[in-house]
Amino acid sequence: MKPVYLDNNATTRVDPQVVAAMLPYFTEQFGNPSSMHAFGAEVGGAVKRARKQLQSLIGAEFDHEIVFTSGGTESDNAAILSALEAMPERTEMITSAVEHPAILALAAHLEKTRGIKVHIIPVDAKGRLDRDAYRAALSTRVAIVSIMWANNETGTLFPVVELAEEAKAVGALFHTDAVQAVGKIPIDLKSTAIDMLSLSGHKLHGPKGIGALYVRRGVRFRSQIKGGQQERGRRGGTENTPGIVGLGKAAELAEQAMHDEVTRVRGLRDRLEKGLLQRIPNTFVTGDVDNRLPNTCNIACEFIEGEAILLLLNRAGIAASSGSACTSGSLEPSHVLRAMSVPYTAAHGATRFSFSRENNDEDVDRVIEAMPPIIEKLRDLSPFWQGAGEAPAAFKPVYA
Amino acid sequence: MKPVYLDNNATTRVDPQVVAAMLPYFTEQFGNPSSMHAFGAEVGGAVKRARKQLQSLIGAEFDHEIVFTSGGTESDNAAILSALEAMPERTEMITSAVEHPAILALAAHLEKTRGIKVHIIPVDAKGRLDRDAYRAALSTRVAIVSIMWANNETGTLFPVVELAEEAKAVGALFHTDAVQAVGKIPIDLKSTAIDMLSLSGHKLHGPKGIGALYVRRGVRFRSQIKGGQQERGRRGGTENTPGIVGLGKAAELAEQAMHDEVTRVRGLRDRLEKGLLQRIPNTFVTGDVDNRLPNTCNIACEFIEGEAILLLLNRAGIAASSGSACTSGSLEPSHVLRAMSVPYTAAHGATRFSFSRENNDEDVDRVIEAMPPIIEKLRDLSPFWQGAGEAPAAFKPVYA
Repeated sequence: MKPVYLDNNATTRVDPQVVAAMLPYFTEQFGNPSSMHAFGAEVGGAVKRARKQLQSLIGAEFDHEIVFTSGGTESDNAAILSALEAMPERTEMITSAVEHPAILALAAHLEKTRGIKVHIIPVDAKGRLDRDAYRAALSTRVAIVSIMWANNETGTLFPVVELAEEAKAVGALFHTDAVQAVGKIPIDLKSTAIDMLSLSGHKLHGPKGIGALYVRRGVRFRSQIKGGQQERGRRGGTENTPGIVGLGKAAELAEQAMHDEVTRVRGLRDRLEKGLLQRIPNTFVTGDVDNRLPNTCNIACEFIEGEAILLLLNRAGIAASSGSACTSGSLEPSHVLRAMSVPYTAAHGATRFSFSRENNDEDVDRVIEAMPPIIEKLRDLSPFWQGAGEAPAAFKPVYA
Repeated sequence: MKPVYLDNNATTRVDPQVVAAMLPYFTEQFGNPSSMHAFGAEVGGAVKRARKQLQSLIGAEFDHEIVFTSGGTESDNAAILSALEAMPERTEMITSAVEHPAILALAAHLEKTRGIKVHIIPVDAKGRLDRDAYRAALSTRVAIVSIMWANNETGTLFPVVELAEEAKAVGALFHTDAVQAVGKIPIDLKSTAIDMLSLSGHKLHGPKGIGALYVRRGVRFRSQIKGGQQERGRRGGTENTPGIVGLGKAAELAEQAMHDEVTRVRGLRDRLEKGLLQRIPNTFVTGDVDNRLPNTCNIACEFIEGEAILLLLNRAGIAASSGSACTSGSLEPSHVLRAMSVPYTAAHGATRFSFSRENNDEDVDRVIEAMPPIIEKLRDLSPFWQGAGEAPAAFKPVYA
């Protein structure tokens, strides 16, 4: 039976058109774009084209605002470190409690080793940022704000356009980790005050090992990987031309799909969600249901372990996720659900289904069929469920 | 006419076997290796295999001493920054005057912004490290020594095994940028005191955008890209699995070629060198001729511009280089040749031919045929050459 892949927020299948675009750059046009000879010069044009494809997808004003990096994590790190270096007189940063480890691990490190004061803004039960706490943290001591565009676990969208305006008012730089948003929802950076934005190739059917950092023209930027003058001195190291070309092509395809496929993908997601909620009692959707990515569904089943659900789904040929791949292996519920105060009994049983344009109706049917007996079986084994019996109303979380 | 590619120290053609090994990881086994499900688990095995292929090539004692990175520049930066972070009580570093910009640009930055004292050890006219100056700079104040294994422009080899022993005696960590050496000469790290080593995929017929940092077991290491717990917490970010698999395969092929091809490649290089020296007056080989990479030849033709040579070679379908691609665009002679005190009149006319296992006798014939008339033509246009007339003996550099 064909496997059902619903873990597209972890990584996506590279589009065969992307692979085809990359191939010539391995064995034919393999030159170093910084070289003087013909082998290099041809490659330079391909890099330029990719930059324009990406510019178009995110609505940047200039193509040179795109800096190619090795991926989302490097982009996130570079944005924050650069801002702190560019504004040494400011020693604070602001972020949210539900960011990716690429932000939170760095923030913890900076707090511990460099004495940077990190304001971690809480979220409510729906995963929405506490706007009052955000405003209270903003001051002229803040060098950089980093708030994600969309949460990887719940798909909850953040009002980054407004948040960036508020940051600008105090002279702080505003960065957004848009790794999950780019290619899924329309983005037009030139009409915003966002200074920097991270994106990743492999989240939008592009290759792994390539990403980009958008740096608005005029924003002071300090390169974090020092070497040659590649990327206008903003990122040393020989350009990953096949990766760059692949990311460019992926951006072009994502822009097309945003018109052609988003409604269909959202429909699949909604049908899955409705189907599971109808068939499985004591089950809730986490996150800001009315304001989230069209492809993401995070469902919490009370009184069972998410890992056990995943293993049984896997046996049924269905790939999903609990929390993010980047923190898997841990038995703690995800930091995102904990920040949302999802009750422990439910957070443990949270499962994320994340769609892409490659999914279809059959995938949804397969999950709707497979999931209810899995949950029933696991609950039969769960002492907590037995204790809860018919799941009294008191257990029904307010965020449902 | 088939182009002649002799710029393999800048970058190499990806071996078709490497591309074939990578392909399944784009569209079939595309999972995130950190994921719980089958899509991820299969990929984890491939990453493990690649680590072992690399371990074998560089003679590491353990496969987990290999940390995958985005390339040589990132590896170089990470080694130095990690060492300074791990030993904050030591505030000096040692490097050489002929390192790659990935070391020298970072060192200059650290000196300027963090007050790190950087000892830049000079080289002699053959590009050999001043061992007395090196010993004088070593002290318990030094956190890290970084000396390249082989120079990218001249191929000159450095006695890194002995230098590492000397560094160890004062408790300093020893790192080597072996980007040009790995895959070209035998390396057996477990029998040395080298603590860290950088390598890059695209220099050994692997893909761009992937590299590795060897970190000896027990060496204190501080991750420079913070995020998830990938690479045992030493490098955050989703693993670039196609790149890693490609690098592994490239390592395997390079290890085979080291037995089968090195003598042939060295023969090609030597025949080219001899042919050019015989046919072109006032021409000298730079670097330590008796102790260098088997694939590299750097030839300085007095009284002309290297850039002009490259353009005319390019017109004849021959790709070579002046200095390194990473510093191209500059009209200054390379920092390597300047450090060697190669006379200005000759350093400007230096051309690097760098071979790989893909070159053959026809390539050598083509260059031997094309180069002499190019040099003659350019010298006819050069006022310096006219002034030098028949090139009196006084102009003949001592390093010839």
